[in-house]
Order: sequence, then structure tokens, then C-alpha cells
Amino acid sequence: MLDIKITKTTAPKKLPDKDDPLTFGTIFTDHMFMMDYKEGIGWYDARIIPYQPISLEPSAMVFHYGQEMFEGLKAYKAKDGRILLFRPDMNAKRTNRSCRRLCIPEIPEEDFIQAIKELVKIDSAWVPTREGTSLYIRPFIIATDPFLGVRPSKTYKFIIILSPVGAYYPEGINPVKIWIEDDYVRAVKGGIGEAKAGGNYVASLKAQIKAHDEGYSQVLWLDGVHRKYVEEVGSMNIFFKIDGVVVTPELSGSILPGVTRDSVITLCKSWGYKVEERLISIDEIYEAYQKGKLEEVFGTGTAAVISPVGQLRWKDHIMRIGDGNTGPLSRKLYDSLTGIQLGKLKDIFNWTVVVE
Amino acid sequence: MLDIKITKTTAPKKLPDKDDPLTFGTIFTDHMFMMDYKEGIGWYDARIIPYQPISLEPSAMVFHYGQEMFEGLKAYKAKDGRILLFRPDMNAKRTNRSCRRLCIPEIPEEDFIQAIKELVKIDSAWVPTREGTSLYIRPFIIATDPFLGVRPSKTYKFIIILSPVGAYYPEGINPVKIWIEDDYVRAVKGGIGEAKAGGNYVASLKAQIKAHDEGYSQVLWLDGVHRKYVEEVGSMNIFFKIDGVVVTPELSGSILPGVTRDSVITLCKSWGYKVEERLISIDEIYEAYQKGKLEEVFGTGTAAVISPVGQLRWKDHIMRIGDGNTGPLSRKLYDSLTGIQLGKLKDIFNWTVVVE
Ligand SMILES: Cc1ncc(COP(=O)(O)O)c(C=O)c1O
Ligand SMILES: Cc1ncc(COP(=O)(O)O)c(C=O)c1O
Repeated sequence: MLDIKITKTTAPKKLPDKDDPLTFGTIFTDHMFMMDYKEGIGWYDARIIPYQPISLEPSAMVFHYGQEMFEGLKAYKAKDGRILLFRPDMNAKRTNRSCRRLCIPEIPEEDFIQAIKELVKIDSAWVPTREGTSLYIRPFIIATDPFLGVRPSKTYKFIIILSPVGAYYPEGINPVKIWIEDDYVRAVKGGIGEAKAGGNYVASLKAQIKAHDEGYSQVLWLDGVHRKYVEEVGSMNIFFKIDGVVVTPELSGSILPGVTRDSVITLCKSWGYKVEERLISIDEIYEAYQKGKLEEVFGTGTAAVISPVGQLRWKDHIMRIGDGNTGPLSRKLYDSLTGIQLGKLKDIFNWTVVVE
Repeated sequence: MLDIKITKTTAPKKLPDKDDPLTFGTIFTDHMFMMDYKEGIGWYDARIIPYQPISLEPSAMVFHYGQEMFEGLKAYKAKDGRILLFRPDMNAKRTNRSCRRLCIPEIPEEDFIQAIKELVKIDSAWVPTREGTSLYIRPFIIATDPFLGVRPSKTYKFIIILSPVGAYYPEGINPVKIWIEDDYVRAVKGGIGEAKAGGNYVASLKAQIKAHDEGYSQVLWLDGVHRKYVEEVGSMNIFFKIDGVVVTPELSGSILPGVTRDSVITLCKSWGYKVEERLISIDEIYEAYQKGKLEEVFGTGTAAVISPVGQLRWKDHIMRIGDGNTGPLSRKLYDSLTGIQLGKLKDIFNWTVVVE
């Protein structure tokens, strides 16, 4: 149990208007959580302080060697006023998996969750209520040793910031167009692809710009070894419904094990769908498409929840999925997930955690 | 031509003792260079200021998405008092190649070099003179937009800091033991391996710790696709002398195009060696070793210049190179490079640039 010292802001910011649809990741709440790490001491000095800049030496290792990880989850305000977190234990576990891969010291799961809860409670007035909005929670760890040379840092900061958000994609729940990239690679087996590490995201920018220039809003990555197996989208896992079966790439070591991915698999199975986690080649997808068996495609992630895919572009082939509208399974998943997240539907899997 | 505004420190630090052998990357000089970037404006506000912490929003993109790049080069004090840079144009060019891959705005080469020169001039008293020491120059760029979401930042900071340094490896010019990694992967073709990006270094830590635990000081990476072609060492390129021929991995897209690598190739060719830049499988190396034809192995990099390899460990095979001492070619390269860098030898390739 962390002993969190609290210093409240004396200059609270203006809350966004209740009717503001909000953008993503541009405004931040009044407070932040911070905790330091030092070799030989461990994590110490847990505190909630007014939201403020961080001051670091220019030689701080995070600026040079990319030793940093982050997480992302959301808090929702239910109709009855309760504030609900969605599966924060999954983010706590994934944090530690990322930390192990990146040689960052781990954080006890219960401390991770406690820190989130206390911070969200203090800034609870910031949890928005308009449909499609939520409070995005961004925990992250950065390496702070003032040292040039390649080795793990001996000091770190664990920080949590909060941002009231609306839709991540301007398309919202409407189908997006996705570009299948066969030149650039995001991550490879044996690398850091399954960690939520900054290096994976900067690696994705170049292809993202290429896709945008071609009129596509997201990139679907292929594996770095064979350049043919489907991996994931920029910040979502990917699902295909082929001839009635729900198929998604297996966790092979180079993709992020998404919390939404896991939840979608659980929901689909509970509804009687056959769900396959396995290698899926892009040729298989194209063949299914040509045979008229590619029924639905959708991305899953905390930011967008479910993002239906309306079009896939692979080399010169354009695959138009369904009739251009959100498919029935995508819609049902979106409604079920957001229903549970908002406390409107029965939480049969015990996924939500109340902030009290 | 940059108009660099200079603010001198009013509290200069104590210079290290003239006889201090110095460590690597732990002490920094009195001043730093800084310049900002804003979309629509470009790079602006070039300034030299007292060495000081950087203050950033906790949402600054560099902390989350790894959009950062760095360079490394050295300044040396010649016997006649001149301060010499070694091939700074190569670092300027590589900076821009890294920037293009990482979607960071480029910096005009002449501005990059001018900034280094002016900063080194101001802190010229910090260029150490003891044998084996130099002033390490660390230019780097970080993304500073206060924004959560994956896209290139619209604001950046370009910073240069200076550190008087001694040997990068405790071994100095003595042979190091190197572990050949066949589980973890540093980078893959199509990824960011050829950029000097933080993400590549954090990816290397886990294997580095494994190697240290086994008593090896560095990791030699194999390619991420076939897991058999030699790539590079943690922060050095790698060379083999096999049966009289100098062989080094070609620039395939996943390794850093080292300045020292380029200089070593040029020197070896000028001495009449046959130099091959090509794919080299680890089996080929092992076979050459078994036949007694693996004459020398050495790493090349700014930090260590030439680092002879005394032992290679690949799975259960241990290859002992030469007689345990620094090989003649490694020694000759070290003497020639440092000779040119220190202005002791004739600079026939016009590699050094005087800071005046
Ligand atoms: C690369 C990547 N893949 C997948 C996901 C989806 O994971 P989750 O459902 O946990 O948000 C994310 C975003 O979090 C991501 O960044
Ligand atoms: C990954 C990597 N490879 C190779 C090198 C050697 O490059 P250079 O000779 O330019 O220092 C470095 C260091 O700079 C490096 O970080």
C-alpha cells in the first residue's frame, strides 16, 4: 500500500464544457501522480501534485536511449455517478511485462492501481459525461540518470497524467480506411514490439505519413521476417471475421497484447463464435475477400474501443469490406464493451473497478 | 549561418584535473547549445546558454513515443593547441538521415557544424589533454509537443551538450569479450536500425545484461530475419580480418553507418588491403576460426575508436582470436586514427576540422 502525499492545486483550471465533444490528448487535468526510483532504494516518494512541467538534466537517459514505457486506460462516469475503470489489472500486468523487456524496475500491481484510483478520485470532476467521451489515463515511466552510455538507468520517474478525451479517430465508430504496409516494419520477433515502448511508435510514423498521403487513416503492419503475416494497426489490434469465424493474429512476440483484444475474444467466445488466434497471411485475407468471405474487419484498442475497417489497401488491391457501414459484430462489440465500461450492462466478467 | 545568441555562465564549474583519466559521459561542461523548432516557422532561437535542466510538459511526446535522435562525435586538443573535430560533416549528414526516418525536421548541415564549433570554442578549456581523453560532443533532438496520440510532433528542441571523457570501455584498447546474441534482436530491415534513435538502444539492454552476466562486455547482433548474418555491436560496427581480407557487414538498412567504419574502410584500402562490405554469416566466421583464418576482429566507433575483440562466444562455441593481445591491424588503425584526430599524423583525407 503506497503512502501517497497529496498537494492540491491552488489554481484549478476551467473544466471543459459538459457538451464539448472533446479531442484526444490535448487537455490535462489539475493533478498528476509522481513517484521516483533509485537503485538500492526502490520506488519512493509517491505523491499527487499539481499538474506541472518536469525538469530533467539534458543528459537524462530518456532523451538519448529511449528507456521509457507507457500505458493507456480509461475511466468512465456511469449514469449513477460511479466512476469506473476498465480492467486496470491488465494494464498493471502489461506495465511489468514492458518493464522487464526494457530493463526498467517493475511496479507492484496493487501500487499501480492504487495510484490511478487516488489520482482519478482527486480529479473526478474531470471525468466527462457526454456520449463517446471518457477520462484517458496515461501512466508512464522514464529513465532519468544524467549519463551518456548504453546501460539501464539507475533512476526513474513513474508519472500518471489524465486527459478528458473524445474520439481518437475523427471517423469515430464509422469505418476507417487502412493501408497495408509492405516496405517499413514496426517490430520484429526478438525485439521490443510486445512492450509498450516509445521506440515502437516512432518507428511507425514514416509509414503512417505515407498512408495519410494516399488517403488512408491507419497502417496495418506485416511481420518483419516474412513480410506476409498480419500483425496489428498503429495503436490497435486487428480482427477479421471470415466465413463466420473470428480470427486475430496470435501473440507472437512482436505485437502488443491489447486489453481490448482480450476482452473482444472473451465476448465473442461467450456469444458462441469460434475464435482463432493464429498466423494470418495477407494472401489468406485477400483470398477470403475475393471469395466474398471477408465479412468484417475491425481494430480494437483502448482509445477507439472498436474501429470498423471499411477498406483495406494492399499493394494495388483495394478490398472494400461489407456495405460501407459498421458491420453487425463490430457494432455489437462496441455496444457491449462501452455498455460494460459505462455500467449500463451487467459486468458478467468482473471487468470494471469502481473508484470510490 | 545561424545567429547564435550567447549567454555565459556566471558560475563556472571546476575543470577536471589535467591528470584525471576521466570516465565516460558523467560530467558536463559549462554551456549547452539549444535551438527550437515550430511547424510553420522552422528552427529558430539558436542560443548558447549555461548548462541547465530542461523543463518539459509531462505530455511532451518524447516521453511517450520515442521521437528522439542523437549523434556523437569528439573534439581533440592537438599538441600545438588547436582543437580538432573529426569529420563533423558525416555526423551532420547522418543526423538528417536519422531525422528523415524518424519524421523529425532536418537541420542544415552547416548550421549543425557551426553550432558545434561555437559551443566547443566557448568551452574550449574543457577539452582534456591526457592521452586517451577527448571532449565528447552529444547533439540530440527531442519532440516536445504536449500531445498524446501517435503522429510526428510539431515542435522540437535541438540541443548539444559536451562531456570530457576517457575510455568508453574499461578495457581501453585491450581486447574485449563479445557475446553473439541469437535470441533478442536489435533491429530489422524496414525498421529504424540505421537511424541513431533511442529505441534501438533500449532494445539492446536486455541482451547486454545477459552478456554481462555471462562475463562478456558487449553484444554482437545477428540480423532479425535469418538470425545468422552479423550486424553490429552495441555501439560499434564490426570488422573481421579473414585470411588477409578485411570484411565488414554491408549497410543493409538495419545497422548504423558508422563514421569510424567509413574511416577504417578508407584507411585499409589506402594501405592496400582488400576490403569487402557484404553479408557475413556467423557460420562463415566460425568456419574461418576453425580453419585458423580468423586473424583479427575489432569494433569501430567514436567512443572507443578501435576496440579489439579477444573472444567471441556463439552458443556453446568460444572463439579465441589471435594470441590475446591487440592484433597488428587493430593497433595500426588505432594509432593512425588517433594520430590524425590529434593532429600528430598528416591528415591526407582532410578529415579534421579546426575549431577557431
Ligand atoms: C501498438 C498497439 N497495439 C494495440 C493496442 C491496443 O491495446 P489496448 O486494447 O490495451 O488499448 C495499442 C494501444 O493501446 C497499441 O499501442
Ligand atoms: C549502434 C551503433 N553502431 C555503430 C556505431 C559507430 O558509429 P561511429 O563510428 O559513427 O561512432 C555507433 C556509435 O556511434 C552505434 O551507436
